[in-house]
Amino acid sequence: MTNQELAEKNVRDMVDNDPYSRWLGIQVLEITPGKVKAKMSVRNDMLNAFRVCHGGVTFALADSVLAFSCNTHGKISVSIEASMAYPNPVYEGDVIIASAEEQSSTEKIGIYNVSVKKENGTLVGVFRGVVYRTKKEFSV
Amino acid sequence: MTNQELAEKNVRDMVDNDPYSRWLGIQVLEITPGKVKAKMSVRNDMLNAFRVCHGGVTFALADSVLAFSCNTHGKISVSIEASMAYPNPVYEGDVIIASAEEQSSTEKIGIYNVSVKKENGTLVGVFRGVVYRTKKEFSV
Amino acid sequence: MTNQELAEKNVRDMVDNDPYSRWLGIQVLEITPGKVKAKMSVRNDMLNAFRVCHGGVTFALADSVLAFSCNTHGKISVSIEASMAYPNPVYEGDVIIASAEEQSSTEKIGIYNVSVKKENGTLVGVFRGVVYRTKKEFSV
Amino acid sequence: MTNQELAEKNVRDMVDNDPYSRWLGIQVLEITPGKVKAKMSVRNDMLNAFRVCHGGVTFALADSVLAFSCNTHGKISVSIEASMAYPNPVYEGDVIIASAEEQSSTEKIGIYNVSVKKENGTLVGVFRGVVYRTKKEFSV
Repeated sequence: MTNQELAEKNVRDMVDNDPYSRWLGIQVLEITPGKVKAKMSVRNDMLNAFRVCHGGVTFALADSVLAFSCNTHGKISVSIEASMAYPNPVYEGDVIIASAEEQSSTEKIGIYNVSVKKENGTLVGVFRGVVYRTKKEFSV
Repeated sequence: MTNQELAEKNVRDMVDNDPYSRWLGIQVLEITPGKVKAKMSVRNDMLNAFRVCHGGVTFALADSVLAFSCNTHGKISVSIEASMAYPNPVYEGDVIIASAEEQSSTEKIGIYNVSVKKENGTLVGVFRGVVYRTKKEFSV
Repeated sequence: MTNQELAEKNVRDMVDNDPYSRWLGIQVLEITPGKVKAKMSVRNDMLNAFRVCHGGVTFALADSVLAFSCNTHGKISVSIEASMAYPNPVYEGDVIIASAEEQSSTEKIGIYNVSVKKENGTLVGVFRGVVYRTKKEFSV
Repeated sequence: MTNQELAEKNVRDMVDNDPYSRWLGIQVLEITPGKVKAKMSVRNDMLNAFRVCHGGVTFALADSVLAFSCNTHGKISVSIEASMAYPNPVYEGDVIIASAEEQSSTEKIGIYNVSVKKENGTLVGVFRGVVYRTKKEFSV
């Protein structure tokens, strides 16, 4: 299996077996090793009391894209820390697209930046995640 | 209205009008100005592909508690940045409890630490949120 | 004054009047609005007990580059929150180069990613800073 | 050696061999396993262009206290990620005091909150650090 095939297989396996990403309606758009892009539509049941998309939902899309990206390599990786800045609000009906960029990947630790944008390009999330690479072979 | 009455009113208004917190099943346990405690149970549809509670769900509980806590004071406050470290995994059936502590609150900026624990005391999230206080009177 | 001239003037004014950046030996390499690149050499008095560059020093270079970048626009901006992941260690004698990228800039809030690399390209810091834009005209 | 003796020995060894903490003028006030408190005075050469203590300096005090706290246990621990919110400015002549609290410590990962306050109690830094525990016995 090539690195690209492994990446695609792992992400497909994760998406197919991830109940919460399914609830979010996440659709994967692009997969390369260390780098996944995915989108979702913001529904009414994802809003907070101010009728704005709940910060936890925007974060969750980025966090799923982080999990997909860091697990393209073949060992199970788990989040240690993640953070997000919120430049602009997201509303019901918005389609938001998260793109991960692997910044660093060593035997133990991976660091990923994820940006979340609306379809019109408006930036709505600047996310960073740090993952720990276990010794366990990937399987879901 | 006392500060305590205002805090309770605002949090109740938010909880009653927050579709995503309702989906999460968040129950508020304690309310004082700047400081809210709430819990939820982790269901199957909140898991990720490794059968562990999705990081976005644990984050969302903390983020809701942040939003409740920072809006106890009477002006609408919105998240600018939030981050979370994940010391231990959460599983289906776990009840997780988030407690906010206001670290600082000025006219413009509020800083809150939120810890998330299982009922047995196991720490599962160490969260911090920074909010911007708008000039708008609180209303949902 | 063009935006580019304003950016250069503000950064030069800051560098000339910043005692701690001078102690660090920071040299500015590139200035455009919202985007500054600078470098420094790691000296013996910047090491920690493990003979590795102190995390606070790598952070400080990124934080100076953040301050320079967010103050290119003409209002005084101050840091609210900043964070850094450390992919690789830095040693005495290393030259480290920090490059800021403005992610978002609104009337009130700016968000910047800063990467810190050695001259050979090794990534040693993945930094993000969030700043608050005051109404005060820039002057040092 | 008791855990307390080990903690004190390790922190003393670190302080005695840390050139940058010496430049900062850090004085350790309290040591218990997982928990160190230290202070420093802000000098003119620690200011930025706005005559405010450089964010990197406040961060560095917290980061040193993190390093001391996480290395009280006997294995070398290194920072993976750290972040800080800045509630209030620090000026020349201020004495700032950082206190770490170990939130979680497993075989691989430690999470620490550090608060930084002025002598009068004003909060000036809300810091969190995540460390990776190597298998190497502590020695400096």
